[in-house]
Amino acid sequence: MPSSPVPRPALGLIGFGAFGRLAAEHLAPLFSLRVHDPFVPDAAFAAFDLLPCGLEEAAACPVVILATPVSTLAEVVRAIAPHLQPGALVLDVGSVKVRPAAIMRAGLPPGVDIVATHPLFGPQSARDGLRGLKIAVCAVRGDRARRVGAVLRRAFGLDVILTTPEAHDREAAAVQGLTHLIAKVLVAMEPLPTRMTTRSFDLVMQAVGMVRHDAPEVFHAIERENPYAAEVRRRFFDLAARMDGGSASMAGPAE
Amino acid sequence: MPSSPVPRPALGLIGFGAFGRLAAEHLAPLFSLRVHDPFVPDAAFAAFDLLPCGLEEAAACPVVILATPVSTLAEVVRAIAPHLQPGALVLDVGSVKVRPAAIMRAGLPPGVDIVATHPLFGPQSARDGLRGLKIAVCAVRGDRARRVGAVLRRAFGLDVILTTPEAHDREAAAVQGLTHLIAKVLVAMEPLPTRMTTRSFDLVMQAVGMVRHDAPEVFHAIERENPYAAEVRRRFFDLAARMDGGSASMAGPAE
Repeated sequence: MPSSPVPRPALGLIGFGAFGRLAAEHLAPLFSLRVHDPFVPDAAFAAFDLLPCGLEEAAACPVVILATPVSTLAEVVRAIAPHLQPGALVLDVGSVKVRPAAIMRAGLPPGVDIVATHPLFGPQSARDGLRGLKIAVCAVRGDRARRVGAVLRRAFGLDVILTTPEAHDREAAAVQGLTHLIAKVLVAMEPLPTRMTTRSFDLVMQAVGMVRHDAPEVFHAIERENPYAAEVRRRFFDLAARMDGGSASMAGPAE
Repeated sequence: MPSSPVPRPALGLIGFGAFGRLAAEHLAPLFSLRVHDPFVPDAAFAAFDLLPCGLEEAAACPVVILATPVSTLAEVVRAIAPHLQPGALVLDVGSVKVRPAAIMRAGLPPGVDIVATHPLFGPQSARDGLRGLKIAVCAVRGDRARRVGAVLRRAFGLDVILTTPEAHDREAAAVQGLTHLIAKVLVAMEPLPTRMTTRSFDLVMQAVGMVRHDAPEVFHAIERENPYAAEVRRRFFDLAARMDGGSASMAGPAE
């Protein structure tokens, strides 16, 4: 086996769930991965030609990606803080950004740069590759957000959206909040027709199919950890109720 | 100009709105069209190389297609009844089937065969041709439904679904009722994000885009003339409300 001329830089990945594995698959050619996840069996690592490593080793890399549920981020930040190197770059990948950015800013030592990201895709939508998929990137501490964006664009063909945690969460509350809300109601109404369908209904059900198997942590983050989610839900239900009322009063002789 | 060896059979088309025009475009190579619609300017006919004709002439063809709104069907049936030839075949194309089938059965003379159809597509979804698009076909009187289905399959590549008016309306209440309900709520919530979107949200909005410009008559038929529509709406709002309640009680410290 020819050894590569330049050794690949080490990258620490904390969390090896569905998204951690997707990230590992695409990062492996560029980085020497140090993956830590005490809740995943060794066999899962073996499938990626990886050995699990300890938290300290993963956290000591020059770049560290946190791919754990948003709800456990504070705990993970506390655990890795003592092991981070000065000048290291820490990124997260959660579905919301206001709270995670605040948690990382408060809990990570001052010499560490922080970039918050939200890949707007999962294993389902990335099945045919990453090219053209979207990722939101927010500067939290330091000036490396633009550079991170450039790498994501160049190396993976991602559509990089530079934004702020607040602007992100406001849009995500609508985009993900509404998709999940609609999917939940439609799944609860099943069985729904599969043969006598219109193209528009097929598109809606295709969307439902993409999110219905999302991990419960993803639902939780979208519904509970996004500060704007409640407002979007409220508007949706208010408008739906108003339409319902309108329907009732207009109901004609539909026999 | 060489005259065609076999003269094309005459087909009467009553109604020259959005769907009537789509039908005319695809039927013109096979039939000699006699189109009647007193509410459409001559220029619209000219664009199809057609001259408008009187109700009597259109109704006297061996095949007559009714492409008027469901809400005016009873009136149209009354108007054409005296002019239909014995053995003629009458078809409708409305979005619901129970009421139209009953109206046609009651109002068309006994010697006339009746086939109720619902093309599950419109000008939008037929932009790239008819092949593979779905059409529901119901026998109402006489035994020509299967033959109609075979022609639609062979001549246009349509996916023909032989069904009954009741089975059709039950499925359509879910398929079209839910799509239109969701589209109405989302349109009312606009502006919605267009850049920072997920693939599943894009699919939902694509579906919304396909139905948002549907004629008001289509909405009306789907919501008011389908006997099962109210039940579907009720289930959707009940489930949504239950989820809303669940959300409220589970709401954690999302700050």
